[in-house]
Amino acid sequence: KIVTLIHTFFSCRDRVLPLDGVNILITAGPTREPVDPVRYFSNHSSGKMGYAIAEEASLLGAKVTLISGPTNLQPPQTVQTIFVESAQQMYDEVMTHYPATNVVIKSAAVADYRPKKVSATKMKKHVDTLNIEMERTTDILKELGQNKTHQLLVGFAAETNSVEEYALKKLKAKNLDLIVANNVTTEGAGFGTDTNIVTIYDRNEGKVELPLMSKREVARKLLDRITHLLKGVNLK
Amino acid sequence: KIVTLIHTFFSCRDRVLPLDGVNILITAGPTREPVDPVRYFSNHSSGKMGYAIAEEASLLGAKVTLISGPTNLQPPQTVQTIFVESAQQMYDEVMTHYPATNVVIKSAAVADYRPKKVSATKMKKHVDTLNIEMERTTDILKELGQNKTHQLLVGFAAETNSVEEYALKKLKAKNLDLIVANNVTTEGAGFGTDTNIVTIYDRNEGKVELPLMSKREVARKLLDRITHLLKGVNLK
Repeated sequence: KIVTLIHTFFSCRDRVLPLDGVNILITAGPTREPVDPVRYFSNHSSGKMGYAIAEEASLLGAKVTLISGPTNLQPPQTVQTIFVESAQQMYDEVMTHYPATNVVIKSAAVADYRPKKVSATKMKKHVDTLNIEMERTTDILKELGQNKTHQLLVGFAAETNSVEEYALKKLKAKNLDLIVANNVTTEGAGFGTDTNIVTIYDRNEGKVELPLMSKREVARKLLDRITHLLKGVNLK
Repeated sequence: KIVTLIHTFFSCRDRVLPLDGVNILITAGPTREPVDPVRYFSNHSSGKMGYAIAEEASLLGAKVTLISGPTNLQPPQTVQTIFVESAQQMYDEVMTHYPATNVVIKSAAVADYRPKKVSATKMKKHVDTLNIEMERTTDILKELGQNKTHQLLVGFAAETNSVEEYALKKLKAKNLDLIVANNVTTEGAGFGTDTNIVTIYDRNEGKVELPLMSKREVARKLLDRITHLLKGVNLK
């Protein structure tokens, strides 16, 4: 808290902050896809990376909107936070805010699949095996990439294997400007930790490998890159 | 905190507490059943009911072992807490502690089904639909009921419909002594709230309907019932 205040104080002394006037949309955390009123599918995303980016972006002068799945975290006070549960709710909120956004940082781990049928009452256990039929959720990042006008688009690739291959594929397939990739099975880079080990890839085959650092430091490095990229972009 | 200390102080003045020398095993929270290293299947249990019972039982002099799934809660300091993730881990811990236990209160919402195959690497999304084949987990409560020697067994029924019917069925099928039933769709009785509205059923068709009250108060009422029942039981 005090560190944040001091940080804010010193940041403000120069008056013009690097992300002044920039609207940043950040998504964070997991989504939950219901099976019935009691059970759901989810993932291990803690939201820490996205919340760290939101707080740092705000300190750098950006107007931040944070769209968050269910997490245990306290949202930064300087940020407009919107809470969602499912991938569909996340999609709706992101699309609503997209037109007025300059930069989108999609750090949320949105479910790719959801149960096709959602039972209105708690399912009873009768049988020994059960097939849950899953259908694809809307691919938010793909949709954003296809409808990009002036926005900078930053994605994440949390992988367990073939990290670089999957990250570069995603960068191209989704029409991203940057992708932040990590191997979630590496010690210090997994879900729920306060640290991360990431590599940032850009459209021009540029690649910055960062060592183990706090998620706050990763956020600052990423926002430095974005600030740099924004200099070549006409802000609406 | 202060309330707890005062409570402890006044509770201790009498020296002999109602649950002195009683070993209570309490389970709390949800379980998580992995699909792959990133995704899992879970439920909305917050663990609040179980943690409240653990804290109250400890104040009443019981030696409490709390076996908890992943929650956001701070475990009571006077209680031995063991953390687990999956239904199988929960089962293993419960069975290890069962023989030396006088009372088991199973407030955890243990998954009935888990994915049959767990992928060692993050599954990639290729297809439009996906079938997740689920298999039954071991029914802990049933196992406890079948292997009951001297233990008092208390179960929970969190339902969305036909609450009394399902609760009484479970009481008999699992050889329980008490079952605490609630309708999780009722306002003030759902997951994650600090209050609950429960009905406690016993083996002799006795039924106590409690009004809306805090989970701490529900815990005290339940432990009163248990204390009363224990008077007729030879503690090992």
